[in-house]
Amino acid sequence: MDVAPSLAFVFNLPKFEYQPCKTTLLMISQTPQAPYYAVIFTSIRTAGDDGYGDMAAEMGKLAAGQEGYLGVESARNEIGITVSYWTSLEAIKNWKAVSRHRLAQQYGQQKWYQSYKVRICLVERDYEF
Amino acid sequence: MDVAPSLAFVFNLPKFEYQPCKTTLLMISQTPQAPYYAVIFTSIRTAGDDGYGDMAAEMGKLAAGQEGYLGVESARNEIGITVSYWTSLEAIKNWKAVSRHRLAQQYGQQKWYQSYKVRICLVERDYEF
Repeated sequence: MDVAPSLAFVFNLPKFEYQPCKTTLLMISQTPQAPYYAVIFTSIRTAGDDGYGDMAAEMGKLAAGQEGYLGVESARNEIGITVSYWTSLEAIKNWKAVSRHRLAQQYGQQKWYQSYKVRICLVERDYEF
Repeated sequence: MDVAPSLAFVFNLPKFEYQPCKTTLLMISQTPQAPYYAVIFTSIRTAGDDGYGDMAAEMGKLAAGQEGYLGVESARNEIGITVSYWTSLEAIKNWKAVSRHRLAQQYGQQKWYQSYKVRICLVERDYEF
């Protein structure tokens, strides 16, 4: 796998974009008893990193410090799916308005994403194995 | 990207392990105007395939034929996230009860998943870029 990027360079192939998740994104979130809220963020990235990885890590930490934050889960192949969990719509609204997060949203539209969709959801019930 | 496997052959590189999702999983789902329902399935796999890939593909096709099905999005790194969208709780309940799907759920607990969590959600609103 280490060889692939150099071959990609020689043959002018698209850069290999697989990026391992941060440690904080590895687990299934231990959310409280429903109801609570979920924000499903589905996206298609542009090529290259261009500051995306650092900002994603920063946003992960920043979100985790927000009041009402319950957890996050994330994975990416052709599309990326990040689901964050919150106690209330108010908490989601407050997170969306955080200035550093607003900058990330702006960069997202300018350079990191081809397209994305955000869905605000009420988690009515859940079960696990 | 099409060139990578043949280059790997010529240079005797390890087989390129990237596995494209099925066509049905590549896109951001074009869901109708909210409200509608989402099922967030977050999972951690066991090692090996053991029939998982074939069953996942079969379930993708089977779900797509169900009444009330609106789309699916899926990605996996350390954790897997599959979000399916539905018109109603009734449609979700019917899908869960399909006999071939019940068998898949049973195999899932027996051999494919270390753990998973299912969240049934009402999508209250969405927006996109």
